[in-house]
Amino acid sequence: MARPLSPKLSPDLIANAALDLVDLRGEFTIPELAKKLNVSPSSLYNHVAGKDDIIELMRGAAVAAITLPGPGLDWVAAVRDIAVKYRNSYARHPRLIPLLTAYAVRDETTIRMYNVLAELFTGAGFSPRRVLEAITVLDSYVLGSALDVAAPQNVWDPGELAADALRDALADSLGRPERADDAFSFGLDLIVNGLAAHAPTA
Amino acid sequence: MARPLSPKLSPDLIANAALDLVDLRGEFTIPELAKKLNVSPSSLYNHVAGKDDIIELMRGAAVAAITLPGPGLDWVAAVRDIAVKYRNSYARHPRLIPLLTAYAVRDETTIRMYNVLAELFTGAGFSPRRVLEAITVLDSYVLGSALDVAAPQNVWDPGELAADALRDALADSLGRPERADDAFSFGLDLIVNGLAAHAPTA
Repeated sequence: MARPLSPKLSPDLIANAALDLVDLRGEFTIPELAKKLNVSPSSLYNHVAGKDDIIELMRGAAVAAITLPGPGLDWVAAVRDIAVKYRNSYARHPRLIPLLTAYAVRDETTIRMYNVLAELFTGAGFSPRRVLEAITVLDSYVLGSALDVAAPQNVWDPGELAADALRDALADSLGRPERADDAFSFGLDLIVNGLAAHAPTA
Repeated sequence: MARPLSPKLSPDLIANAALDLVDLRGEFTIPELAKKLNVSPSSLYNHVAGKDDIIELMRGAAVAAITLPGPGLDWVAAVRDIAVKYRNSYARHPRLIPLLTAYAVRDETTIRMYNVLAELFTGAGFSPRRVLEAITVLDSYVLGSALDVAAPQNVWDPGELAADALRDALADSLGRPERADDAFSFGLDLIVNGLAAHAPTA
């Protein structure tokens, strides 16, 4: 097929090409990305200042589909809703996750989500320090759970090494398609209900 | 310095060389690993059947320093103790984490830890299904928190994009060296206390 020698670059095109590389190999370089986009590295530098800008574009692309809850929900339901959507978005790009946590969050779409979370926790009466702790706890649980979604169907394969308790637990659950979703829900309830019990306005 | 042409390979040597590659670039290939170890790929295949075996060696190396709690602790304290050590071990190799979750757990050292967790939760009266959910919740939180430890000092850098609540939270906490540890402890308490409240024998 004919292909223009110098396709127009856009933040979306750059983010999606970089995501393809990261999904495949867990990493990318500027020269690889330029080659994939069929442009020179210097054309790429007309759009981004460096690798950290591209990480932010990927961060934004990964959460772009998240619709934030409207004002009708109470804060516990709203936090839960954001966590579910956030985890499902990142579960599509598990190998992106350690790159995201290695760079400071600057992407506007992502900051908008953190603004809403900070407002919800502040509205519940938490101190500024507790607000950031609550956000961090949710973040860690969501990112770890996104990795679990991407795990193989048989996450554990202990063979003869499993003692009775682990063997029984695996026999009951391994291979159930709902395993990861059910576990995520259970843990998310532990966290949000625990936060609700700590909230000064509870 | 003189170097033997064919250094003796061992599981430890293989695991540590692979960890060096993953720490640096988030990935490794068998030819790269053989080159780093100064052996041929076929010598490597005398020790491991393939990439998945090397992932298991790295998994074991990452948790090798964890000492499991003795029988003196109650189950809540014992679970908490394992989670803290497990998170500190993985925090040293954040880029290993998505590789670990992409492969089934077979490593003996790691299975020993899961055996203890399964026994603790079973002893607390949880059903086999709940035992695996509790382990999964803890796993997800620990792995996500290990990534947070490796995050830059200023995890968020929203500039003018931060609304009041997020700005206040960041102003209070960002740059505090204890930020990640305090948040991890807070969330771990929410999870283990929530589990304790759900335990049939509580």
